[in-house]
Amino acid sequence: MIKAFAPATVSNVAVGFDIMGFPMESPGDEVIIKKGQEPGVVISRITKGKGLSYDPTMNTAGVAVMKMLEHLGIPDHPIDIEIRKKMPFGTGIGSSAASAVAAVVALNHYLEAKLTKRELLPFAMAGESIASGAWHGDNVIPCMMGGIILIRDNATLDFTKLYVPSGLRYVVILPPAQVLTSESRSILSEQVTLNQLITQTGNAATLVAALYSSDFDKISRCLQDVVIEPQRAHLVPKFYEMKEKAIEAGALGFSISGSGPSMFALCSNTFVSDNIEKAARELYGKDHHGRDAAKIFQAPINLEGADIC
Amino acid sequence: MIKAFAPATVSNVAVGFDIMGFPMESPGDEVIIKKGQEPGVVISRITKGKGLSYDPTMNTAGVAVMKMLEHLGIPDHPIDIEIRKKMPFGTGIGSSAASAVAAVVALNHYLEAKLTKRELLPFAMAGESIASGAWHGDNVIPCMMGGIILIRDNATLDFTKLYVPSGLRYVVILPPAQVLTSESRSILSEQVTLNQLITQTGNAATLVAALYSSDFDKISRCLQDVVIEPQRAHLVPKFYEMKEKAIEAGALGFSISGSGPSMFALCSNTFVSDNIEKAARELYGKDHHGRDAAKIFQAPINLEGADIC
Repeated sequence: MIKAFAPATVSNVAVGFDIMGFPMESPGDEVIIKKGQEPGVVISRITKGKGLSYDPTMNTAGVAVMKMLEHLGIPDHPIDIEIRKKMPFGTGIGSSAASAVAAVVALNHYLEAKLTKRELLPFAMAGESIASGAWHGDNVIPCMMGGIILIRDNATLDFTKLYVPSGLRYVVILPPAQVLTSESRSILSEQVTLNQLITQTGNAATLVAALYSSDFDKISRCLQDVVIEPQRAHLVPKFYEMKEKAIEAGALGFSISGSGPSMFALCSNTFVSDNIEKAARELYGKDHHGRDAAKIFQAPINLEGADIC
Repeated sequence: MIKAFAPATVSNVAVGFDIMGFPMESPGDEVIIKKGQEPGVVISRITKGKGLSYDPTMNTAGVAVMKMLEHLGIPDHPIDIEIRKKMPFGTGIGSSAASAVAAVVALNHYLEAKLTKRELLPFAMAGESIASGAWHGDNVIPCMMGGIILIRDNATLDFTKLYVPSGLRYVVILPPAQVLTSESRSILSEQVTLNQLITQTGNAATLVAALYSSDFDKISRCLQDVVIEPQRAHLVPKFYEMKEKAIEAGALGFSISGSGPSMFALCSNTFVSDNIEKAARELYGKDHHGRDAAKIFQAPINLEGADIC
């Protein structure tokens, strides 16, 4: 029996729509792989994954495992999957990707298949695609590999693990709301202006250079999404209010994580991240149980990604 | 009397429309600054600049010099400008920018003003803007600073001099044709698709990472313009034929320089660049004087930019 952990991920990162992402330290999903009772893949248990399917062909972890078994030429190998969801889904922090990634990492160790993380990616992406409806690596790849990942081409898995300056950390805020990825995608205009293209390519390309040179001021100037954020902000409760408070507190940048409603800030130190966390607790207040209505996470960028645990 | 040289520049660089450029080794313009006969700025001589105005308010070098004199608080200082055009204009290699840059570099030394190159940029950009009609640094900044320049914001001159891998060189081909920048701009669609935006930001951002890591294969994969090149290719004689030959010869990438009709290839060595040069000579043949119809230049990326000479 092997257990693996795969972290939640922030994708898009303001200026890298569909091409950039990084993993958080926590939360993350755990998947346990053990010998099944009979040939084939069975999902025996899902913890805190209300609404997730026990049918392996309808579950991102199940599909990922089946794809990998097929690749290894042992599709009927008896495999039992237990999924421990440690994060909400539909919040824009890559929940579907995390389950798929944890599953193949665990399976790789369970079978002693010795595939590299890079070789495991296609199976996890195939799993994730049944949730997102597309072959997208912007959650799966950072979740697996760690670091800030820049994707040039999903089809060929042409991606780059960017240099991450020492001290760079995130605050992620999950407000009390849910957004369907498909809905959040469908509201986006299929057209952008040439000027938006120029601004976005300038910001995205300069962000890469700024990371390589650990230039926090420049990182901050780059983190301005002129294309996607304005179209999605209304899906996120109190987005602009929270953004203003985060920038006031010293965030390098603040935007929507993935398709939302989660938000993220990048910061250069814990003084700033603590103040953003405090501001978020105040802004979103308490729920009817008297608990903080927003869930808040902060840590340095996770450079390791998924692993057995 | 002070003479300065400012090089021709390749802008756009396939995936950096309006935000990227690099200078060539040659050709370039020379500007000579000396004491004028009477107060104010006079253009006394223009060599090979048929059609360029002797009215300093209508000439990119003249305007650049006047702006700088204004800034220094000596607008009536007697200045004589001689411009030696060493490159054709209307060919997409930054001719207007080069004259303006050479003028302010020469003036800076002539007056012993000791401004940095960065401080000289706004005057040269003001000069260049009378030709291009816009405040754009994608020729002026690389021409002045050298190296591969990435611009995040023209208004605040927020640019980055990127790391250039050893061995990286260009071939620039000037076919027998002329294109007006304004015309070449006006044919561009004001709208692009979201998918084009994703592809272009991925390519541009990854190109920066690939330069920093001297990864020539990755540089090559990035140099694909899905937005501008398809719209402008018809303005360039035999563009796709030439591109095919350049890629066959081993070019890392091939596209249109600036608004065309000049083309450029990036290469990792002289074996490749020599073969591209040969292919271009064959494709464009001879003019009615029996000379090569296309002008061809190749060298390593110019890392120094403009200087006195």
